[in-house]
Amino acid sequence: MYKLVLIRHGESTWNLENRFTGWTDVELTPTGVDQARNAGRLLKAEGYDFDVAYTSVLKRAIHTLNHALDEMDRDWLPVVKNWRLNERHYGALQGLNKADMAKQYGDEQVLVWRRSYDTPPPALDANDPRGQRQDPRYGKLNPEDVPLTECLKDTVARVLPFWNESIAPAIKAGKRIVIAAHGNSIRALVKYLDNIGDADIVGVNIPNGIPLVYELDENLKPIRHYYLGDADAAAKAAAAVASQGKA
Amino acid sequence: MYKLVLIRHGESTWNLENRFTGWTDVELTPTGVDQARNAGRLLKAEGYDFDVAYTSVLKRAIHTLNHALDEMDRDWLPVVKNWRLNERHYGALQGLNKADMAKQYGDEQVLVWRRSYDTPPPALDANDPRGQRQDPRYGKLNPEDVPLTECLKDTVARVLPFWNESIAPAIKAGKRIVIAAHGNSIRALVKYLDNIGDADIVGVNIPNGIPLVYELDENLKPIRHYYLGDADAAAKAAAAVASQGKA
Repeated sequence: MYKLVLIRHGESTWNLENRFTGWTDVELTPTGVDQARNAGRLLKAEGYDFDVAYTSVLKRAIHTLNHALDEMDRDWLPVVKNWRLNERHYGALQGLNKADMAKQYGDEQVLVWRRSYDTPPPALDANDPRGQRQDPRYGKLNPEDVPLTECLKDTVARVLPFWNESIAPAIKAGKRIVIAAHGNSIRALVKYLDNIGDADIVGVNIPNGIPLVYELDENLKPIRHYYLGDADAAAKAAAAVASQGKA
Repeated sequence: MYKLVLIRHGESTWNLENRFTGWTDVELTPTGVDQARNAGRLLKAEGYDFDVAYTSVLKRAIHTLNHALDEMDRDWLPVVKNWRLNERHYGALQGLNKADMAKQYGDEQVLVWRRSYDTPPPALDANDPRGQRQDPRYGKLNPEDVPLTECLKDTVARVLPFWNESIAPAIKAGKRIVIAAHGNSIRALVKYLDNIGDADIVGVNIPNGIPLVYELDENLKPIRHYYLGDADAAAKAAAAVASQGKA
């Protein structure tokens, strides 16, 4: 009935350095740019086309979208940028190295921070320069709505209003949609769409830069989903994401 | 009262090849990318900031905007892309070399095609593959509203509704606006804002990639305008634009 395409941004500088990123606005690496362009080439080769694109207000997702659309010769598509598609806020872990944290606190604690559904990492102080309450891109939000940390449950809670109020109606209106977003904002959507339990979502990892296609029925219930391109490569890339938090 | 910033796209591949471009969707050259990034750096250094950005549906303007916003760390700004900000449609001249045409038809005829206010170049045939009537980005327009050629008067006529209905109200609402567009869509705006006569607009040339600032009063009447950065360089670049159509 409908097809929805989700793309996690290409590799970022902090993916490469294995640091918790969250709402920190880091760049794509050259590899990340290649991944984004490959995603666009793949979509074009497979005959995909879109009417509207959605992304976050973080440049690693925006640039991924721009590079992919450029490969599709679709630079001119309308693009909606919204903070509700941002990565999960990583609180006081933002900027710290995942393996260092695992050495210091143990693999298990880091896995809890990375993947527990309802336990957020320690919060940032409201005045911490690593925080976003002074950032003009969030200037229209109430400062207290700009998170200081989030668990995935919190991310689900702020992604879903945007899904329900903007994206889902656009899909039902027949718009062909691509969303370029982040590991955890995509996991939030996947959890909701596939109705994955709080305990099971921990095992779901989204690889960088590989288009994830959802076929949806008329009520936007998933019929099936699959990664475009080489399935083994996608599985390997997802496994690599899963192992990032180990000492 | 208000400040409006206009940027003509950086050098394109067909600027470099001295070909009539119009609605053909050509890329920036590496020099064009540098010009766009310089424009962004200059705007940032001079303390400019924006709330909304406008551009055409042609990638040389979209990429110019993206590069400039990236230098300003404003990738996240909302961007409105509209076909009414496109370059003037160059009709049957699209793709042809300006100097070749001058050799064939004379400098004067080419100047008329390039700069006459109300004489359009010869029209494209509606089925000419160089035309845009099959292009999906214009799919929502009536095919007969997609031009087959335009004089500047035609460009003014299609730019102004977008100015009046979208951009002017946004400025009056206090939004700080940047427009990344094209030589002739910017000339159309400049002619309107400064109330330049049909005969005098021929002498106005817009250089690539140099921010042009308009200070406007509360009725959006210009108080003054100026190019950012090196004034001599801007004048030289404008003169180079003026001489492109000579044999």
